[in-house]
Amino acid sequence: MMTPTQLTSDASQGFFLTVDGGEGAGKTTTLEFIARWLEEQGIDYVRTREPGGTPFAERIRELLLQASDEKVCDMTELLLVFAARAQHIEQVIKPALAAGKLVLCDRFTDASFAYQGAGRGLDLNALSTLENLVHGDLQPDMTLLLDISVAEGMARAGARGALDRIELEKHDFFERVRQGYLDRAAAHADRFVIIDAAKTIPEVQAQIAQALNTRVSNA
Amino acid sequence: MMTPTQLTSDASQGFFLTVDGGEGAGKTTTLEFIARWLEEQGIDYVRTREPGGTPFAERIRELLLQASDEKVCDMTELLLVFAARAQHIEQVIKPALAAGKLVLCDRFTDASFAYQGAGRGLDLNALSTLENLVHGDLQPDMTLLLDISVAEGMARAGARGALDRIELEKHDFFERVRQGYLDRAAAHADRFVIIDAAKTIPEVQAQIAQALNTRVSNA
Repeated sequence: MMTPTQLTSDASQGFFLTVDGGEGAGKTTTLEFIARWLEEQGIDYVRTREPGGTPFAERIRELLLQASDEKVCDMTELLLVFAARAQHIEQVIKPALAAGKLVLCDRFTDASFAYQGAGRGLDLNALSTLENLVHGDLQPDMTLLLDISVAEGMARAGARGALDRIELEKHDFFERVRQGYLDRAAAHADRFVIIDAAKTIPEVQAQIAQALNTRVSNA
Repeated sequence: MMTPTQLTSDASQGFFLTVDGGEGAGKTTTLEFIARWLEEQGIDYVRTREPGGTPFAERIRELLLQASDEKVCDMTELLLVFAARAQHIEQVIKPALAAGKLVLCDRFTDASFAYQGAGRGLDLNALSTLENLVHGDLQPDMTLLLDISVAEGMARAGARGALDRIELEKHDFFERVRQGYLDRAAAHADRFVIIDAAKTIPEVQAQIAQALNTRVSNA
């Protein structure tokens, strides 16, 4: 097993691990599993999420998720997401990585490409521009993409209770989101690991453990 | 006098008038004066402000102005300002201009260049990138810049009561802001009119009336 300061080729930079995927793909269960795995390995980690991750960024998240009588424009939503992200990176992610820790993050910029880009049809160039502006020099070391069919994902998400504004969007939207994630994975194959999230929980966790063993730990 | 639909060379596009300037330069008094002038001329106008101008954008404004224990990063602040702006443009400014109205706006993107760019030292390229992203196709038809020395402006602003977070910033910051406005005016001389705001109110208003008579009305 490696210590936190040996997690990447550049030992001083920690390891940036993001977990992404559509509604009902099992992100929460997966994050819990990874947290337990890291603890068992004795790896020092920070668990965080997007949008949010700092008190101020969480207030931006509240603005994004609350239902509003006023239609929130696509560009407004996108800029709010990146505003929260800029705060999160500066206050949480970069300091933790600089301290040699592993950062375990529930969603990151890939979600913007999937939801705002592929889902809402915002220009991918606009997204790339904001990505470069806010964190051109920082990318995840590994991204676990939990992939599941929209029908199964929505059924699972619906079983959780009230849907928020974004979850109420239409089925077609989620189809585009799923494809947006897969396109992003194809374009960044070096860091993406696609997990078949339709399988049973033990099977999903076996896939994840394999990815973690390969990339995070040398056990 | 011209009717609202004759305000610009492209008659269908209304007229976009912004008023900008540092602390204590007399923006509020000026906006009141312009509103009265427009009413006297019978010009149909919408009065609005930045950051804000819609209920949702005003909620972003609240986030920006509230004091916070957490340091708000420069990039976060900048993205929040442009998020509010995107909403304001889409919901208020563009519809009003399309209806042939004059839009009278308290601050616009020039304030971002002055405060976040010159003031906080954010890369002007980042500002230009966001400007192009959010409203590359829309610029004010005329910008009245109320220019005043920092010492006199802060004395006037201080007399108004409690200073908010941004107003509490240091004197040097406001010197950079003032120069940022003047640089922006030099780069966009076609639409900027610099008003000497250190003069008496009647003298200031005479300068403004002259600008309005020349550019907005043919009276």
